[in-house]
Amino acid sequence: MENQIDGRALILACSAIGAGLAMIAGIGPGIGQGYAAGKGAEAVGRQPEAQSDVVRTMLLGAAVAETTGIYGLIVAIILLFANPLISTYMNLIG
Amino acid sequence: MENQIDGRALILACSAIGAGLAMIAGIGPGIGQGYAAGKGAEAVGRQPEAQSDVVRTMLLGAAVAETTGIYGLIVAIILLFANPLISTYMNLIG
Amino acid sequence: MENQIDGRALILACSAIGAGLAMIAGIGPGIGQGYAAGKGAEAVGRQPEAQSDVVRTMLLGAAVAETTGIYGLIVAIILLFANPLISTYMNLIG
Amino acid sequence: MENQIDGRALILACSAIGAGLAMIAGIGPGIGQGYAAGKGAEAVGRQPEAQSDVVRTMLLGAAVAETTGIYGLIVAIILLFANPLISTYMNLIG
Amino acid sequence: MENQIDGRALILACSAIGAGLAMIAGIGPGIGQGYAAGKGAEAVGRQPEAQSDVVRTMLLGAAVAETTGIYGLIVAIILLFANPLISTYMNLIG
Repeated sequence: MENQIDGRALILACSAIGAGLAMIAGIGPGIGQGYAAGKGAEAVGRQPEAQSDVVRTMLLGAAVAETTGIYGLIVAIILLFANPLISTYMNLIG
Repeated sequence: MENQIDGRALILACSAIGAGLAMIAGIGPGIGQGYAAGKGAEAVGRQPEAQSDVVRTMLLGAAVAETTGIYGLIVAIILLFANPLISTYMNLIG
Repeated sequence: MENQIDGRALILACSAIGAGLAMIAGIGPGIGQGYAAGKGAEAVGRQPEAQSDVVRTMLLGAAVAETTGIYGLIVAIILLFANPLISTYMNLIG
Repeated sequence: MENQIDGRALILACSAIGAGLAMIAGIGPGIGQGYAAGKGAEAVGRQPEAQSDVVRTMLLGAAVAETTGIYGLIVAIILLFANPLISTYMNLIG
Repeated sequence: MENQIDGRALILACSAIGAGLAMIAGIGPGIGQGYAAGKGAEAVGRQPEAQSDVVRTMLLGAAVAETTGIYGLIVAIILLFANPLISTYMNLIG
């Protein structure tokens, strides 16, 4: 009887949508890190002798800004490859 | 009777969408922390001797900005791994 | 009996939507890298002699900003070409 | 029996929505490259003698900013013209 | 029996939604090119003698910013006038 939509299919289908939605978080680091890149380029243009300090600060800040993008990626990966909701459902229906 | 969509499946399926939506909050910290990184790089370029103070202030502010991204992550994790809605439902239907 | 909507079709259909949603992450790098390009052009206009340092910093920062856009692309490619949800489903229904 | 909604129709229909969603990524390069164009025009106004350096940096940065918009276009084109999900489905239902 | 919703109707209906979604990309070039126009006007106001250089740079950058808006338009036109999904479907159902 595989020709019907059952609960397992609905959970997995909505997990595909959920994974896609989670990636939208990537908008933030993209904007933020680009701003840091622009300010870094500007600062290096003004004080080329401070380049290594500027770049180090820029990259440190960009690493912090990356975190929420990675949170989104982790949630998407969990939904795709180790879906805990389908496990819960399989346990519930025995 | 596992070939039908029941209430448990619907709750878990919508939890996957909810978890994905919650991660969209990550846009904010991504933009904000990137702005802080850019201003930090700019300040270090102007006063390289103040680098440690600049970086410390930047990271302190970025930590505060991270909070809402973490709130989103916590809600997603709860929906995925310790779903209280399905527990409520199971209690309701006995 | 291929004239009905079954669970496999629903999962694959929602994967198409999920893949599209994941690409929305590309808004971020687009804005951010464009900002970096603008600031880079401005800095080169002011200090043409620092052009190589400015461009190097701009591209380094832009590479970091690209990451979340690539995360979105990877999730979309996984959903389209190596869909783990349909595999999970086929295993579940045996 | 072509007068019913079957699984193939659902997958293709959702692919149309997915392709449209993927194009939303174009918001980013549009804003970013426009910012670069504005800053480039400003810099050329101030230092017309540096025009070629300014324009070259602007276009290099804009090319990087274009990438995520092109990722979205590629995913849309795949969904429209070489849909891997419908192939997967046709293989599954034999 | 043309008074029922069949697969062809669903694909064409969702193609209308997809075409509309694709046009949302137009937000980006609209904002970006407007910013470029503003900066261009500002620069010409300050250095009227550099008008032709400023305008040329502005239009070059704006042309680049237009691209993702055109991608969205192309995808919408394809969905509306040369829908490949409905062709795929008609081939599949023979």
